[in-house]
Amino acid sequence: MNTATLQENVLNGVNTTRLANTIEAIRMAPKLGEFQFRAQNTWENGGRNHATINGYRGAAQELQRSDAFRLVNDEPPVLLGRDSGPNPVEYVLAGLSGCMTTTLAYHAAARGLEIESISSSYEGDIDLRGLFDIDPDVRSGYREIRVKFRVRGGIDEETIKELVQKSPVFDTLRNPVNIRIEVEKA
Amino acid sequence: MNTATLQENVLNGVNTTRLANTIEAIRMAPKLGEFQFRAQNTWENGGRNHATINGYRGAAQELQRSDAFRLVNDEPPVLLGRDSGPNPVEYVLAGLSGCMTTTLAYHAAARGLEIESISSSYEGDIDLRGLFDIDPDVRSGYREIRVKFRVRGGIDEETIKELVQKSPVFDTLRNPVNIRIEVEKA
Repeated sequence: MNTATLQENVLNGVNTTRLANTIEAIRMAPKLGEFQFRAQNTWENGGRNHATINGYRGAAQELQRSDAFRLVNDEPPVLLGRDSGPNPVEYVLAGLSGCMTTTLAYHAAARGLEIESISSSYEGDIDLRGLFDIDPDVRSGYREIRVKFRVRGGIDEETIKELVQKSPVFDTLRNPVNIRIEVEKA
Repeated sequence: MNTATLQENVLNGVNTTRLANTIEAIRMAPKLGEFQFRAQNTWENGGRNHATINGYRGAAQELQRSDAFRLVNDEPPVLLGRDSGPNPVEYVLAGLSGCMTTTLAYHAAARGLEIESISSSYEGDIDLRGLFDIDPDVRSGYREIRVKFRVRGGIDEETIKELVQKSPVFDTLRNPVNIRIEVEKA
């Protein structure tokens, strides 16, 4: 047993000693908190393509995983695909769900609040008249997303609601993101 | 060989006969275009949780896949996780990449434009001072996302740029989405 291990605290599966150190390090040197995440995508055919996720920048370093993550996008038959993977708008709900959940677990840990279980469900409405240019007043993306959390642990409903809204994906969807597009013919 | 098959056209791997029929059906009966996508999430520990994707509503029906899709969210070690899956903000880039790609392939097919290959890359900036409440003026989500498309085929750069922006996930990120949150103690 080494002393460092003995001095580290864990709550909600989060090493709160390292979390506090990370936050303090970013407070002292904001450059450490500048992260850049990346994806590459290759079209296969029709509604099927795959994204590859690996390298990212964070804590003032270029970082890599040992293996890349490969995520297949497809569409269900009713949208002319073969259902060989979730569709792109479902990946967004998956990311939102992961982010609100992790944000709750981490922030609760930072406040010393113990959580036993978290489950949540997501529903998002899309009107295809937007995507298919049938009605210019209909947006192509999600019109509304409804989220339900069910949490067991030493934390009240008000605090849960406050903490899940700190989620980066929640903010990414809730508020406009600047997206720059470059196109090149191969 | 049956007559129906002979009469169906395919371009970019997209059945353009069925695509045109789908668009016309939604134009005549907008209810058919009202889709609802869903996810469920279960927290495991720390930064690890998984989303389950299966049923959805569309074309005025409740629809299911034969098997659910299971998407693991984790964080890299520098964010106190074990890298057992992409992190939530990376899932958002994967969804954006799939959506812009599929939207390009479908809309090009609808216009009779042949595409041979599409590859694209995505970079998104996140400043952790937002998530960690270090600076209230820093948002927790993506500040900017940069997208680069490389396309081979009979389509010009201007049209590519126009079509990828019709993507539902592009619109979901570019413009605010209303998100309603309910919390229940288990």
